[in-house]
Amino acid sequence: MRVVPETALLDEAVQRPSARDLGISPGILGTGQYNAITDVAGVAVGHMTLSKGTQINTGATAILPHGGNLYRDRVPAGFHQGNGYGKFAGSTQVIELGELETPIILTNTLSVPQGMEAAISWTLKQPGNEDVRSVNAVVGETNDGFLNDIRGRHLRAADIEKAILAATSGPVRQGSVGAGRGTVSFGWKGGIGTSSRVLPAELGGFTLGVLVQTNYGGILRVDGAPVGEALGQYFMKNVVDEGDADGSIIVVIATDAPLSDRNLRRLGSRAMLAIGRTGSPITNGSGDYVIAFSTAQEVRRAPNKAPLSGLANSQMSPLFQAAVEATEEAILNALFKATTVNGHNGTVEAIDIEAVKRIVQTAR
Amino acid sequence: MRVVPETALLDEAVQRPSARDLGISPGILGTGQYNAITDVAGVAVGHMTLSKGTQINTGATAILPHGGNLYRDRVPAGFHQGNGYGKFAGSTQVIELGELETPIILTNTLSVPQGMEAAISWTLKQPGNEDVRSVNAVVGETNDGFLNDIRGRHLRAADIEKAILAATSGPVRQGSVGAGRGTVSFGWKGGIGTSSRVLPAELGGFTLGVLVQTNYGGILRVDGAPVGEALGQYFMKNVVDEGDADGSIIVVIATDAPLSDRNLRRLGSRAMLAIGRTGSPITNGSGDYVIAFSTAQEVRRAPNKAPLSGLANSQMSPLFQAAVEATEEAILNALFKATTVNGHNGTVEAIDIEAVKRIVQTAR
Amino acid sequence: MRVVPETALLDEAVQRPSARDLGISPGILGTGQYNAITDVAGVAVGHMTLSKGTQINTGATAILPHGGNLYRDRVPAGFHQGNGYGKFAGSTQVIELGELETPIILTNTLSVPQGMEAAISWTLKQPGNEDVRSVNAVVGETNDGFLNDIRGRHLRAADIEKAILAATSGPVRQGSVGAGRGTVSFGWKGGIGTSSRVLPAELGGFTLGVLVQTNYGGILRVDGAPVGEALGQYFMKNVVDEGDADGSIIVVIATDAPLSDRNLRRLGSRAMLAIGRTGSPITNGSGDYVIAFSTAQEVRRAPNKAPLSGLANSQMSPLFQAAVEATEEAILNALFKATTVNGHNGTVEAIDIEAVKRIVQTAR
Amino acid sequence: MRVVPETALLDEAVQRPSARDLGISPGILGTGQYNAITDVAGVAVGHMTLSKGTQINTGATAILPHGGNLYRDRVPAGFHQGNGYGKFAGSTQVIELGELETPIILTNTLSVPQGMEAAISWTLKQPGNEDVRSVNAVVGETNDGFLNDIRGRHLRAADIEKAILAATSGPVRQGSVGAGRGTVSFGWKGGIGTSSRVLPAELGGFTLGVLVQTNYGGILRVDGAPVGEALGQYFMKNVVDEGDADGSIIVVIATDAPLSDRNLRRLGSRAMLAIGRTGSPITNGSGDYVIAFSTAQEVRRAPNKAPLSGLANSQMSPLFQAAVEATEEAILNALFKATTVNGHNGTVEAIDIEAVKRIVQTAR
Repeated sequence: MRVVPETALLDEAVQRPSARDLGISPGILGTGQYNAITDVAGVAVGHMTLSKGTQINTGATAILPHGGNLYRDRVPAGFHQGNGYGKFAGSTQVIELGELETPIILTNTLSVPQGMEAAISWTLKQPGNEDVRSVNAVVGETNDGFLNDIRGRHLRAADIEKAILAATSGPVRQGSVGAGRGTVSFGWKGGIGTSSRVLPAELGGFTLGVLVQTNYGGILRVDGAPVGEALGQYFMKNVVDEGDADGSIIVVIATDAPLSDRNLRRLGSRAMLAIGRTGSPITNGSGDYVIAFSTAQEVRRAPNKAPLSGLANSQMSPLFQAAVEATEEAILNALFKATTVNGHNGTVEAIDIEAVKRIVQTAR
Repeated sequence: MRVVPETALLDEAVQRPSARDLGISPGILGTGQYNAITDVAGVAVGHMTLSKGTQINTGATAILPHGGNLYRDRVPAGFHQGNGYGKFAGSTQVIELGELETPIILTNTLSVPQGMEAAISWTLKQPGNEDVRSVNAVVGETNDGFLNDIRGRHLRAADIEKAILAATSGPVRQGSVGAGRGTVSFGWKGGIGTSSRVLPAELGGFTLGVLVQTNYGGILRVDGAPVGEALGQYFMKNVVDEGDADGSIIVVIATDAPLSDRNLRRLGSRAMLAIGRTGSPITNGSGDYVIAFSTAQEVRRAPNKAPLSGLANSQMSPLFQAAVEATEEAILNALFKATTVNGHNGTVEAIDIEAVKRIVQTAR
Repeated sequence: MRVVPETALLDEAVQRPSARDLGISPGILGTGQYNAITDVAGVAVGHMTLSKGTQINTGATAILPHGGNLYRDRVPAGFHQGNGYGKFAGSTQVIELGELETPIILTNTLSVPQGMEAAISWTLKQPGNEDVRSVNAVVGETNDGFLNDIRGRHLRAADIEKAILAATSGPVRQGSVGAGRGTVSFGWKGGIGTSSRVLPAELGGFTLGVLVQTNYGGILRVDGAPVGEALGQYFMKNVVDEGDADGSIIVVIATDAPLSDRNLRRLGSRAMLAIGRTGSPITNGSGDYVIAFSTAQEVRRAPNKAPLSGLANSQMSPLFQAAVEATEEAILNALFKATTVNGHNGTVEAIDIEAVKRIVQTAR
Repeated sequence: MRVVPETALLDEAVQRPSARDLGISPGILGTGQYNAITDVAGVAVGHMTLSKGTQINTGATAILPHGGNLYRDRVPAGFHQGNGYGKFAGSTQVIELGELETPIILTNTLSVPQGMEAAISWTLKQPGNEDVRSVNAVVGETNDGFLNDIRGRHLRAADIEKAILAATSGPVRQGSVGAGRGTVSFGWKGGIGTSSRVLPAELGGFTLGVLVQTNYGGILRVDGAPVGEALGQYFMKNVVDEGDADGSIIVVIATDAPLSDRNLRRLGSRAMLAIGRTGSPITNGSGDYVIAFSTAQEVRRAPNKAPLSGLANSQMSPLFQAAVEATEEAILNALFKATTVNGHNGTVEAIDIEAVKRIVQTAR
């Protein structure tokens, strides 16, 4: 079995445009430097892609809130369950304690155990964690069982740990990479996408970044333009069964705004609005989850440390707007950057960029 | 004080088009006969509008799941809290027991007590309820304090009870009427809107109807078209404070599909997707709630009666699609049907229909 | 109609012992000065009792977190729903924003609207609130419909407002007073009870106080002793229908520990453990709710103010223990202090103190 | 490494009495034949215990709702989170869909991934599941890191699968066995315990069974008797830090009553009352979760099958009573049946049965 050289995947994807390359920029706020979750200082992303012939198309993506000891220097976090037909791990402790103590791992549905094992192994090995006996691994997943022999469970924990070790700041590879290698969205190839927003200085100048793993469907809208209907590919087109739009989406939101866990939960819930904007009804079989965290130093947690809770409720609205915008653009980026994959049960085509461009331009 | 003759209000509103009159029909499903929540057989809607000069612009709207004894012949119901900056009454019992035992009342923020009193009084008086000592009034509200002297609390319980008594099936008056008399949406006059969808016979042929009370904001999209930006009126346009987009929306969903309370809760959560589609980030100050109920006979509740729980989870997705579509269209109808109101703190203009038409046509 | 002179009620109740007078002191922690919720500095309690012959036995109890402007100087709060067969008002906003902006009102089931109206009226009138247009009234209730002609809805908003105005610090009247005038617990007269705990200085020295309105049942245990079985009066004794143990309990928890809203919610959930200790299975018809707030200055809320979130998660356990102990003792105090009431549908006897003493002593 | 012969463990435990052997029988209802979760027809329990010297003391316990294809013939289920400092897997899908599709696995904190892997592997292999690509493994855990080298993660998925394969109906081994091998409760050895209750025929004659994995603490009460204080071993005895009472408890409830998922969730929440009765304040570090399911044929789920939702809300109270009673007795059984274990960081003694007997008898 071979691991696809990440540089090769990068090459593929760079030939495809981002939403913004096509002039599509949902909302009114500006982006950060990379238009990526890594625009939030300290956040790092790593991919591990596993591909072999048509049988295996899967992988893992890791998001690290900061470069220190995540277990000892915890970030506050909020969790939102949009539709719970999924296997998201670690949610109950995030809800109860309002904090994150590990990297966030994304992978395929049946590899959640290996994702947890990777997060646990990595955490136990970090310097300073020699006496740690409890680790709350946070793992999201979507089902890549069409393009990937998911029942084969080819990802080992050691493979997934490589995604954590590969995590870097700076530009983030998008499309059919990492945990997005085998995913499908609106009937086209989905994958990993990212985007960011920066608030005006008068509103605090905070940065918010989003990373998504898209595997869901509906009736595709691209910043309002009816692409799904125009291309004749959409949910219930021929009164089909539910499976056609099923899938899932995991949304990871990072911000340097100093938020309480409650306001991070509220922030996370806004991602659903963006999913709605892209044309999804969130079908029954979808596992739609959001995890949001703050990297601000003043809200970090430690035993017996009473952190500042940060911004007041009344200061949240611009961040809510940022979350909607960045989530919508991240979803589009996943779709536009994703490349065609020939997989286990057939081929899933990348969306036709020229067609999208045409439909979107008509709608202006 | 005078109660605006409902026929007068009707006349005003009929001169304004619905979304569908403008060729705007979100989604892919067809509507019921009236394109209203009353397309679900048995559902009745009543308005009571209170208006006096510019000082008082408020009212109440009542939705009755059926024409029988609502307390004795209960419908299953689900509740969803999108953003809880609101005073929705009755939610905890709906969540716990999964059922509705009164009409649903919509009114203004400070008149929730009078709304509850009206629902309680009406219920205690119904034949067969002589021994009833516990009534769970379900009351939603939005804040009409800009156009209405809300601190004056001019609505009495007896006024609101008139909305219950006025409830009828058939066409539903929309716009600046009932609980929508004083509301504001996206900076234009909001109000009451309604819409419905009918599933294809192969998917059960069920009808789903929505009624909304709109008082929220954001960056208006009309079925994808960027109306808010085009008209230069939107949230954070000039890095404004949060208040500008605040407000709320109450969504009432009715269906004749035989759903369990859990699936009604899930159905209700889909309304948020439609709110996202219209351009809202759901600001901090918004009270966004959804209540969904089923009128199907086989899921009716009674003491010691074990009802059928209805459709399987896997049959829900088309209904989710219907809920998104009907909610989006109901919101647009509220906006288009609403008429300019001169109120307590100033005037709120109805949206310029010609401008909307122009922007939407350009986007096609 | 006459309002029972509060002093008369006080006289009655002082003739009956508290739990501690009987040597019953659940747990291991010490109490505050008054063994009352008012041991938390600044907290005030007021009762308004309405009684007329046997027909009317009801009232209201108000709890004020502090003596300032509650709307402008908000306290963080958490809400827990033990069993939601009740009409608790204001919960959704407390959950969303994590704060309290009004007094907490307790009253009977059908008077919740009047309780809300009282809290709204009082709030609108406070100096500095002239521009307030939104008020989240928090009102709990239990059903006193056996002893009180609840359908008559004899409490007016103005009556309930008197409870707010009567609020004072210092000793709290317990038993058949205020919102506890007509309640029934374990088949005996229930009512209002209170208790407090003080943590050792090494654990912060915080004070926590509880006030309860008891109207529920089960198989009574008094600090472990099987009083219900010994006296032959308990739920399901003769395979009875559910009604016999139905009712509700509202628990209000105050503390001066600087807690986040999340940890206040967690604190509130511990009250259920105490309810379990007294022998309740929380029957279907019970409306069991807890509201917990912190009075600490450093966690007070204001627009655009970012408060300290207070104690770390890891510092919560002693407060959890305090909450369980004080809730259990408050429930027992309500039962022991309550006096026999001849009411609308019959008489409910106070529990036989001598019998309790005998059974508890045997169990030692 | 050796697997302790289960028969040897059985021998040890049979020498110790159950609660009922000591005349301790919480509540008023009778038990089923085995006083075990397996009294609910079809339910099977299997243990796998891993022990080597003092280093390794851990294991797994599997609970199967019925002997058929659990994935194809799903049981409705409800989930309750008492305190979420834990790693319970599978909760979000149980909440969303209200059903269980795998065995329930209990194990140690860091072996949850292996528990999930075992449940997934076993499910994929079942006849009829050849096309299954999504499996929601439900795994509970408590932390046996004092007696077990938990960081060594000695349990492999194949080990845990043996617990599933070992599952049988009939008597259930209790104490220091399976997932209870290394747990600690109230400072004494905890473990696995079980108990059941049968409702009177007039109330449906339903059976309800509970199985617990106890690893939590507090101030022990044995059916009301103050054992913890009498033996001088309890939480906060010397104003200790929180760790002393930390731990967790997982409660599994089975019943043949035909319940909806909502009522199963409500049923599960009642287990907290029993935990309160045993003297726990549910400390910060506790992971307390309940999963409840119904085995009744008429509420089984299948694609496109609309099941009966079963008993009405008003019929739930006796089952709530049964859940409290059986949970309390199961916890006591775990404590009484558990045998002393010499482990990784020291020895944890079994509770002194003679002392318990003495204290309980005095309290009568």
